[in-house]
Amino acid sequence: MDNTANIEILGFIAAVLTTAAFLPQVYKTWRTKDVSGLSLPMFLMFFTGITLWFIYGFLINSPSLIFANGITMVSTFLLLFFIVKYRKK
Amino acid sequence: MDNTANIEILGFIAAVLTTAAFLPQVYKTWRTKDVSGLSLPMFLMFFTGITLWFIYGFLINSPSLIFANGITMVSTFLLLFFIVKYRKK
Repeated sequence: MDNTANIEILGFIAAVLTTAAFLPQVYKTWRTKDVSGLSLPMFLMFFTGITLWFIYGFLINSPSLIFANGITMVSTFLLLFFIVKYRKK
Repeated sequence: MDNTANIEILGFIAAVLTTAAFLPQVYKTWRTKDVSGLSLPMFLMFFTGITLWFIYGFLINSPSLIFANGITMVSTFLLLFFIVKYRKK
């Protein structure tokens, strides 16, 4: 297997980790409704940035970036939804 | 300015947003010591993934990835440190 394939495998593992990483946070926030410690500005900025990474992935034709950021967009959006829904008014 | 430069600018904006995004979370967690809502598995997986993205950035020679993931590694490590330090035993 040539070097480029190895590099893309590394990219995919990085993609799986940084994508899957949000799932325990989405589950914990959904289960506990505890959003007091989560920063709304963080998730707003992060969601915007991830969307741009998603577009960047298409432009440079990187399967790792497209795969990772596509799913992270969904989980970050869910967290944003929970933060707005469960935060104390 | 040719297309590649524009694409790398988009990458840099994405990099700045997803990197800067962690700063309000680091600040909020440092100020409030409120880590109850933060998921330790998330930040462990995320830190590992970001480290791989950092290596991937070097391998494909992408300044955006190197810049973004280098800084995010530091802020994610700080959050991991706070979570372990401030969580109720």
